[in-house]
This record gives sequence, C-alpha cells and structure tokens, in this order.
Amino acid sequence: MERWIEEIDQYNATPGNGTTRQYLTDVEWEARMYLRGEMERIGLVVEMDCMGNLIGTLPGTEPELAPVWTGSHFDTVLHGGRFDGVAGVVAGMEALKLIADSGAAHRRNLACVAYAAEEPARFGIGCIGSRAMAGALSVQDLKTTRALDGPSLYDELRARELAADDIESCRKKPGDVFCAVELHIEQNSVLETSGVRLGVVKAICAALNFTVTVTGTAAHAGGMPMESRRDAFAAVSEMSLALERMTRENRMSEYCTGTIGFLQIEPNASNIIPGRVNFTVDIRDCDAASKNQLCDKVREEFAEIAARRGVALEMRLQNNDAPVSSHPALRTLLANCCEQRGISHCELISGPFHDSLFVGRFAPIGMLFVPSRDGLSHCPQEWTDCADMKVGAEVLADALLHAANLESLDQDGTDNHILSPMV
Amino acid sequence: MERWIEEIDQYNATPGNGTTRQYLTDVEWEARMYLRGEMERIGLVVEMDCMGNLIGTLPGTEPELAPVWTGSHFDTVLHGGRFDGVAGVVAGMEALKLIADSGAAHRRNLACVAYAAEEPARFGIGCIGSRAMAGALSVQDLKTTRALDGPSLYDELRARELAADDIESCRKKPGDVFCAVELHIEQNSVLETSGVRLGVVKAICAALNFTVTVTGTAAHAGGMPMESRRDAFAAVSEMSLALERMTRENRMSEYCTGTIGFLQIEPNASNIIPGRVNFTVDIRDCDAASKNQLCDKVREEFAEIAARRGVALEMRLQNNDAPVSSHPALRTLLANCCEQRGISHCELISGPFHDSLFVGRFAPIGMLFVPSRDGLSHCPQEWTDCADMKVGAEVLADALLHAANLESLDQDGTDNHILSPMV
Repeated sequence: MERWIEEIDQYNATPGNGTTRQYLTDVEWEARMYLRGEMERIGLVVEMDCMGNLIGTLPGTEPELAPVWTGSHFDTVLHGGRFDGVAGVVAGMEALKLIADSGAAHRRNLACVAYAAEEPARFGIGCIGSRAMAGALSVQDLKTTRALDGPSLYDELRARELAADDIESCRKKPGDVFCAVELHIEQNSVLETSGVRLGVVKAICAALNFTVTVTGTAAHAGGMPMESRRDAFAAVSEMSLALERMTRENRMSEYCTGTIGFLQIEPNASNIIPGRVNFTVDIRDCDAASKNQLCDKVREEFAEIAARRGVALEMRLQNNDAPVSSHPALRTLLANCCEQRGISHCELISGPFHDSLFVGRFAPIGMLFVPSRDGLSHCPQEWTDCADMKVGAEVLADALLHAANLESLDQDGTDNHILSPMV
Repeated sequence: MERWIEEIDQYNATPGNGTTRQYLTDVEWEARMYLRGEMERIGLVVEMDCMGNLIGTLPGTEPELAPVWTGSHFDTVLHGGRFDGVAGVVAGMEALKLIADSGAAHRRNLACVAYAAEEPARFGIGCIGSRAMAGALSVQDLKTTRALDGPSLYDELRARELAADDIESCRKKPGDVFCAVELHIEQNSVLETSGVRLGVVKAICAALNFTVTVTGTAAHAGGMPMESRRDAFAAVSEMSLALERMTRENRMSEYCTGTIGFLQIEPNASNIIPGRVNFTVDIRDCDAASKNQLCDKVREEFAEIAARRGVALEMRLQNNDAPVSSHPALRTLLANCCEQRGISHCELISGPFHDSLFVGRFAPIGMLFVPSRDGLSHCPQEWTDCADMKVGAEVLADALLHAANLESLDQDGTDNHILSPMV
C-alpha cells in the first residue's frame, strides 16, 4: 500500500505544493490508467464505466450473486494530500489481494471500485462518479455543469472517449450490489485523541447549502448616524451568531454543524458602511428530519433579523442532500472484525461526505475510518501511518470476505471473521 | 457657480461613470490650472504652494493683518460626484466675487483656498494639502506614502515640479490665518429631511482606525464539530455586534459611529471554516475623550471575545486624529448671517472629516453645510440644488466680509451682516 500511495502521488499537477489531481485532467487520467494496471496485476478483472469509475472484480464461486464492493476515490482537492480517497482505494485493493492470496472461498464476487471525482474541486459538485451510479445525474446535468476552467463536464467526458450520452449505463439499482464497505481517513482527530485505532461509521452527514445576499444601504462611515443605518454586515454578523447558536442548541441530532465559510462585502472599503454582503451557509446533519427542521429555523430567524434591521434578504437553496446511515449489520460486522483481531474501535459520525453517501442510495453501506494525524485533511500535511493502513486493510478484508459468504445481511454476524490463514 | 461646477467636472478620469479626479493625476492637475485661471479672472491674486494648494487672495485695506480664509478641496473619490469639495471652492470664489463686486471695504485680506487631496482615494491618507499646512506631514512621510498605483507621494510631487523637500514652506502657524470658514455639502439628509436650508457645523468628527486580524483554525466544515471550532469569522461576528452596541450606547458623545467596512476571510470557501479574518474598524467621534474611552472599551471587549473563543487577535492602530470644534464666535456669526437673510438654519455635527479638521489646528474654523439630495455623496448621484448653492454663497460672503473687518473674534457678533449692495 505504501508503494501504491507513493506511486499514485506522482500523478500530481502541483508537485512541491501538495497534491492536485482533478477529474478528467491529464494527471487524473494517467492515475486511472495506473490503477487499472495495478488492479489487473493483482488479478482483478477491471471494467471502466462511462464516467471513468473503475470496477476491479475478484470473481467468487457464485458470480451470479450481487457483489460485495469496497473502494473509494482517487481525485484530490487543490493542493490536497495523498491519503484522502486514495487510502480507501489501495486498502480495497490490498484487502482483495489478501483474500485472493489466502485462498479463502467466497460465494459473491468482490470488487474494488475507484470512484471518479468525489471532490467538488473542478466541477463544483462532489461525488460525480457515485452520483451517476445512484442515478442522480442526467445528460442534461453533464451539459450544464462546467469546470472552473471552462469546459462542460459533458465535453470533457467525450474528449476522453467516455460515453457521456450513455450515463444510464453506469446506473445501479437496489439489489445490484449486495453491500459496500469503504475505508477512508477520518479527516478529524477523534481517533488520534482517544487513542482508538479504527472508527466504525454510524452515519454520513450530508450538506444543505444556501447562498445568501443581504442588501442594506452603503453610506459614508462618518456621515450616517448609527440609528439610521441599514448596515448589511451588521445584519450578517447577527445571522452568523444565530446560525452558530441554533446549530449548537440543536438537540434533535447527534451531529450537526453550521458554517459561513465564504463571504464578500460590497463595496468593501474601510470608510463605507457595507451596502451588500454575499455569503454561503453550509448546514450538515446526520439526520434528514433534524436538518430540515434546522433549515426552517434558520430561514425564519434570518428573516426576522433582516426585517428588524430593514435590510433585504435573499436565500437561494443550492442543494439539500440526504444523509445516510450505515447498515446496522455492517456496523456490527466491522465491530466484530475489530474485536476478533483485538483492535480498539469506536463508532463515529462522518461530518464530511463520501462516495458511500451516494452508494447508500442503492446498496447497504458501511465505513471504516483510519486515523488522520492532527486531524488534518485537504492539505499537504495530511497523513495516516502505514501501521494504521495495515490494520484497516486487514479488518476490511475480514469483513469483505465474511459479507461475500452471507446469504443476507439479516444473518447473525457473530461468527469468527478473521481471515486466519494470512494473519 | 453652475458653470464652474460643470466645467471643473470635465476634468474627470471616468467620464460616464461618476467623477474621478485624484491627486497629482493629469485630470487633477488640469483642474488646478483651470481653477487658477478662473480665480485670476475674478481678480484674485493666486499662489500655489509646494503641495499644490491654491490660495487666491482678494487684498484688503490692511494686508498686513492675518487673512480670512474660505475654500475647500477639488479632488474626488473614485466614481464620486461633482459637489463634494468643489461646492466649497466655487462658493468661496463666488463669495469673494460678490464682495469684490459690492465694493464693500474689508481690512483683512480674503482668500479662497483650493486644498489639495482631501480624499484618501489615491494615497490612503486624507487632507494631504491641509495636513501639510498644519505641519502634520514630513518629507519622510511623503517618501513612505505610496499611491495605490505605485509611486511615492514624494516622487509624484517632484514629477509635477512641486518642491516636496520644502514642505515646511507651506506650513501655517497659529495667528497666520485669522479664521477660516468652509462651505461643504452635508453628505447626509438631516437638512433635507427637516426642510432647513443651511447647517452650521458645531464640530467635525475625526476617525480612529484599526486594522484587525483574527486567527483561528481553518478546518473542514463537515469534519469539525461545533464545540471544537476556533472559527475566526464567528469571533468577528461577535466583535461586529459588540462594536455596534458599544457605539450606540456611548452616551459620552453627541455623535459617535463605529463601522466595519472592509473584511476579508481566508480561505473563503463555502466548505471550510474560516481560519483567518482581516478587517478594519472605523470609529468616529466629535469628542476626543469619548473616542479614546470607546477605543479602550473596544480593545478590551475584542480581547475578551478572542480569549473566550480561543482565537488570536491582533489590532493595529492606524491613526487617531483629533476632532475639532467650530469657534463659538464663528458659529454665532454664521447663525446671525442666516437670520438676517431669513434663511432657516440649524446646528449640525459633521461625521465626515474635512480640510477644516486640519485648518482647525492653526486657525479658528467655522463650517456651513448645504443640503445633499437624498443624503447621497461619494457617488455619481451626489447633488445640491443651485438655489441652495446661491443661498450658501451669499451667507458665506456676509460672514467673510464681517470677519474681515473684526479686530478679534471675541468682538460681539450682532451687527448687521448683510452684504447689502448686492442683495
């Protein structure tokens, strides 16, 4: 895995300044070809779908059954790290290699999927590969989604000879995949701080995004008395604190965040009262009902603040994706696999989204987190120790092999799961 | 005056998009030459000092006495209007012309000053011409003050053959000027709203400016729980509301404002918790003690917010200019001049600063405000009616003539002030 991580990291548009590998750029395409070759080298049968997702299959004894999937993505943010995504791809490949090398029998096919474009870095939307699999992207969407550097997603796919018009061909329906287990770096420091080796994900939060414009009246900072102002930024300051308070007080949900990450003042001069502020609101929750209720409260309170301060408020909902919960049987299975190897583990909520958010729309999902040093991610300092990757891949292999022999997930998950010949 | 305003407005770097006439640019230099010519045409003796201030003198019968000044500035902000500054220059010229044409005797010289660079638009500091007269600018300051477009103020002055090294030559000492009365547009809507024709300024507020940096920790908007955040923008939101509250509750002062006009978030992405925010604080007050006390409170409260939220705070004081009060005798004189012409008037505080703020350091000052339509200023819509300009110039002429015959400002100001031959 160490070699794979280093070799994939060579496909990088910004060497010396973090890792940048964006969807359908040259380095990303070359990384895809490298991965395809490595999957084949370890004995997987690889297909590439119309979005550039790679599916590397280790055939089971009953290949007509729905397969068990693992895998993650291999693109990055701008100036990101080498583990976000790639860790789950190489751990999936390593797990299938461990199973193949062990000679253990498995009824279902096992597949490692290298998903295309989980990061929204180039095209503004995340999980493009898994989103298409979930049937949540149309040909029309491909045509209207444009890269920051200009071309449409549709044109970029066709330039790589991918059949963009045939997007339905990569779609998976419920039942097509038996279950999917993704390994990912935690991107937080809960595991590191508590000294726990592996995290079993309970639920993946999904984001609700607003873009908001507050319009007051720009005026001379000295000329306009405080009582007569319609200061757009003062109104936004109040909204910001209201969002923070409502998010923290939200007791309906186990994990909920609210963030104003982007903000732009007009005209943005020290001696002019802000006339307009554009900003974003990012609300994440692991529970859809809780998120929608919070969203209603935010709308209501922002409107009250705007009315009281005499400023205009425009809130545009950009997206409201559904959170997904791991399948209880897969949580139990992953926990049991940890137990049987004596690996410390705990349950976690994932604040960031992952491909499993969309895979969860057509298959039961589970996720395994490995520790991130200092909780850092989306930066060149992103790091996960080899020893943690090894433990993660072994537990993943145990769980995949076990799942590949299950008739249904409702079966009891208490048998011995250790892939014993190899350990 | 109407013709003068229109003709000066032709010296404009952004025709069709407001008026832009910045210090030591070609259009500003040409406007200076135009003004010099017009002053000479109405019989004034014009000198230009080493900063490009024009002083157009109408000699009195006792020219050895300290002169009475009027005048304002003729530069503009970016995309500003045609009245801010220019109104006071042309009203001053008109007043001297009315006095000259009336044949009324005046002992003291009368002068109309066209001050250089009141707006901080190009070099970042305001009142450059009057600041130099007050002895508050050194040759070293000229060398370190740079235009937004690059060159130093020192080099730009020398490029126009102005003797930058001889800045002391334009300095005025207390006693050099008997008194100075500036007419300016109100830049607010108090006069318009109350239907009063002219405002007599009681005091001019001065600004205290901070640049502030708040540093927290940037992190993934989904990955970092609310309880663990060190969100720089949430901290700034709280500081913004604290500034607003403290300013509004400040009962020590008759007029006090606090503004955050400029703000920049890093990294400024919707899904990243702000790690750093840079912003400005502009505090204005007509009373120095009140301003300094408020400034201490702001420092204290910002520090408390930063400490409580675990973010670093750096506050850099940029400037803390002293407010100035109009001389009581000049307030009385201006009010009497209005009364005797039957012109409605009221007393006002000036939130924006003016050249009189610096002239007030070496001479007793008074100011007369004419109405601004809708209170708008620093924008192309800036407007003052001709009729208001006429009334303002007439009252100004009355006051200047009266002052030019006073032995001292302590004299009673109740005589008839009307410049009767012309009215």
